[in-house]
Amino acid sequence: MALDLTFPDPAAADAGLSSLARSVVGSEILKIAAQIRAMQASGAEICNLTVGDFNPAYFPIPEALLEGTRSALAEGQTNYPPSDGVLPLREAVVRFYERELGLRYPVESVLVVGGARPLLYGAYRTLVDPGDTVVYPVPSWNNNHYANLSGAKAIELPVREDHNFFPTLDQIAPHLSEARLLCLNSPLNPTGTMIDAEQLRAITQAVVDENEKRKQTGARPLFFVYDQVYWTLTFGAQHVTPVGLVPESAPYVLLLDALSKAFCATGLRVGWGLMPPAVRARMADILGHVGAWAPKAEQLATAKLLDDPATIQAFQATFLPAVKARLDALHGGFAALKAEGIPVDAIAPQGAIYLSARFDLFGRTIRGLALNTNEDIRQLLLQHAGLALVPFQAFGLKEESGWFRLSVGAVSLADIAAMMPRLRALLA
Amino acid sequence: MALDLTFPDPAAADAGLSSLARSVVGSEILKIAAQIRAMQASGAEICNLTVGDFNPAYFPIPEALLEGTRSALAEGQTNYPPSDGVLPLREAVVRFYERELGLRYPVESVLVVGGARPLLYGAYRTLVDPGDTVVYPVPSWNNNHYANLSGAKAIELPVREDHNFFPTLDQIAPHLSEARLLCLNSPLNPTGTMIDAEQLRAITQAVVDENEKRKQTGARPLFFVYDQVYWTLTFGAQHVTPVGLVPESAPYVLLLDALSKAFCATGLRVGWGLMPPAVRARMADILGHVGAWAPKAEQLATAKLLDDPATIQAFQATFLPAVKARLDALHGGFAALKAEGIPVDAIAPQGAIYLSARFDLFGRTIRGLALNTNEDIRQLLLQHAGLALVPFQAFGLKEESGWFRLSVGAVSLADIAAMMPRLRALLA
Repeated sequence: MALDLTFPDPAAADAGLSSLARSVVGSEILKIAAQIRAMQASGAEICNLTVGDFNPAYFPIPEALLEGTRSALAEGQTNYPPSDGVLPLREAVVRFYERELGLRYPVESVLVVGGARPLLYGAYRTLVDPGDTVVYPVPSWNNNHYANLSGAKAIELPVREDHNFFPTLDQIAPHLSEARLLCLNSPLNPTGTMIDAEQLRAITQAVVDENEKRKQTGARPLFFVYDQVYWTLTFGAQHVTPVGLVPESAPYVLLLDALSKAFCATGLRVGWGLMPPAVRARMADILGHVGAWAPKAEQLATAKLLDDPATIQAFQATFLPAVKARLDALHGGFAALKAEGIPVDAIAPQGAIYLSARFDLFGRTIRGLALNTNEDIRQLLLQHAGLALVPFQAFGLKEESGWFRLSVGAVSLADIAAMMPRLRALLA
Repeated sequence: MALDLTFPDPAAADAGLSSLARSVVGSEILKIAAQIRAMQASGAEICNLTVGDFNPAYFPIPEALLEGTRSALAEGQTNYPPSDGVLPLREAVVRFYERELGLRYPVESVLVVGGARPLLYGAYRTLVDPGDTVVYPVPSWNNNHYANLSGAKAIELPVREDHNFFPTLDQIAPHLSEARLLCLNSPLNPTGTMIDAEQLRAITQAVVDENEKRKQTGARPLFFVYDQVYWTLTFGAQHVTPVGLVPESAPYVLLLDALSKAFCATGLRVGWGLMPPAVRARMADILGHVGAWAPKAEQLATAKLLDDPATIQAFQATFLPAVKARLDALHGGFAALKAEGIPVDAIAPQGAIYLSARFDLFGRTIRGLALNTNEDIRQLLLQHAGLALVPFQAFGLKEESGWFRLSVGAVSLADIAAMMPRLRALLA
């Protein structure tokens, strides 16, 4: 007979854990997801725009990646990869960046781990001592969590629609002299906007200038993490990189990237970063011990995929229009509501799988709900229009601005078409 | 034309990184592996007993796991799993532990991540504040690295062959009142030995008793991490667990486990831990942000495998004798050398894929090499007998005891048979 084990009340037991554990804040999006699952289980029709993920029925991975992984498994690629990635993938990433972005990195710059998430965690741990200053915009993805996990002093720069949700050099400049790390992401999760080349050039040049000053005093450098996991998902505007615009920035810049969003492969757990070899060496040691390794067969299949521009192009020829059609449908729908005088707004799609939309409903009461916060609006839309969104608060923004992230990877055009009348009926 | 990026000298650039990064020590085993690769590339014949891994040609994963993963991929299981593991796998782990170990855990106890490595890192981060005391034996696997990464005060208990390489309660007891965490592993990497049930019962009871005392004062509890990733690989002796022997220990015990060693699947990156729900909740949040997730298709295939005792039994019926034959060949070879008066020794195989062997060559000079340390002996054996081993120093032991880990997952019986005469010729 099996032993039935008993455990103390979790709330009381929590007090016995480490300070770090008790201070960690779980993903806000996952909490929203749990609420949606419960409503769906009770039969509610919901247009779920919350998850930064793909429904494989609409967005399968490339056939070459699928068959490449299946073949590698069948060939017995089932034992340990090197903890920092198989060499064929690290070399393929070098060729991919040279071919697609015009950046020639040495292979010693390339670290492969289990997604972009460990790279961001690894960057904070490799570069930031407790008490060091980190500068990032809000809303942005998870910087607040990584600052907390590394004991950093966070300087959060609120960004708004008037600058396309990116910080200006004027906002950043006053903080550079005390900063250890600057973090930007473009195309931006959660807004779907892309940074302007001149703006990024100016910011990058300021990072280089700051480091020239530090060389005189021997102070530790300012690093610049540039998360570009959505760089292949753009709809017209040109994606730019700090090192492409200001090559002298290379000793300070970390480029983070992954298979996950570019190829609808969030479940395969393969990411890569390109960075100065000195940074890579230490981050590889840290993440090697942490154990955030990428599975071997998936790595080998990714290497083949990145070396195959025709296959990538064919995949994107289907994938990108399908994403854009959904974003356009939402954007068009919001524009129509706005034209009717309904107080909503949305930013035209630029990149990633996200749309920024605003509900300026503050101070109103609808269906008995007094609307004073983004969370109030979120509950209204979820419960009375079957529309599930994520407020920018989930990305570190404090201001109750009425802005939300709409993610289209898990819905069909029909889901969007069915939702818009419900939304109109609620707000008209 | 692509930009050729330039980077500063890594040694100089290293000074600009975080204290954590500059203090991290990479895996010693990986450094040894690099030396072996270089020798093999220049044509040397080497019996490589260094890697805790499997050669898939000798040790493939179970066919059901292979086809299960391939099918899950083909069925489109390519998007995000929950960060703490898919529910079917968490439920399958519950059934697996009830069926095979007689322990009935609630599903809220089960955390699935990308291998056992993140669980060990996660345990330290979830339970240990900087400055807290952690107690573990040496040699043991990577506790020194995790203590360093979490800023713990490490109390290392040197263990010797006279107690089967496990600490006694007498060794542990003086440190329990100040300890936050005790870490044991059985079957033990690197020694291949297993803890005795009475010894484990006494240690576990002492953990319970210490926690009873702390309840009076409200002090934070003492936790007990029990790494049992090799528990299905045993050759006669019965594997025991702290919670099985002393059920009252359940609120303090974390059991760490993985697909990797039990099913030759080190490259698939799936591990699971069973622990108090309060600990699990926080560790899930930390490792969710860290990004050490397991790939989704592999998780779903693992769930099916764990629910299929007949398949597991059939796999083990081939796998375990093949491991044991290699360990026996080495053990028999060392016994024969010892009978000839050559100063070597080895412990009879008990569990895991490791054999402990000793070379008592200190003070001698062979082939012009003066032998004063384990490293001297390692170099002699590698260069003059084509025998690659890992000294216990790689597992935190300071004492130059002449003991080495021999790992058999990557060699054939023919490799061992070819090596033994070379070793005899060198030492006779």
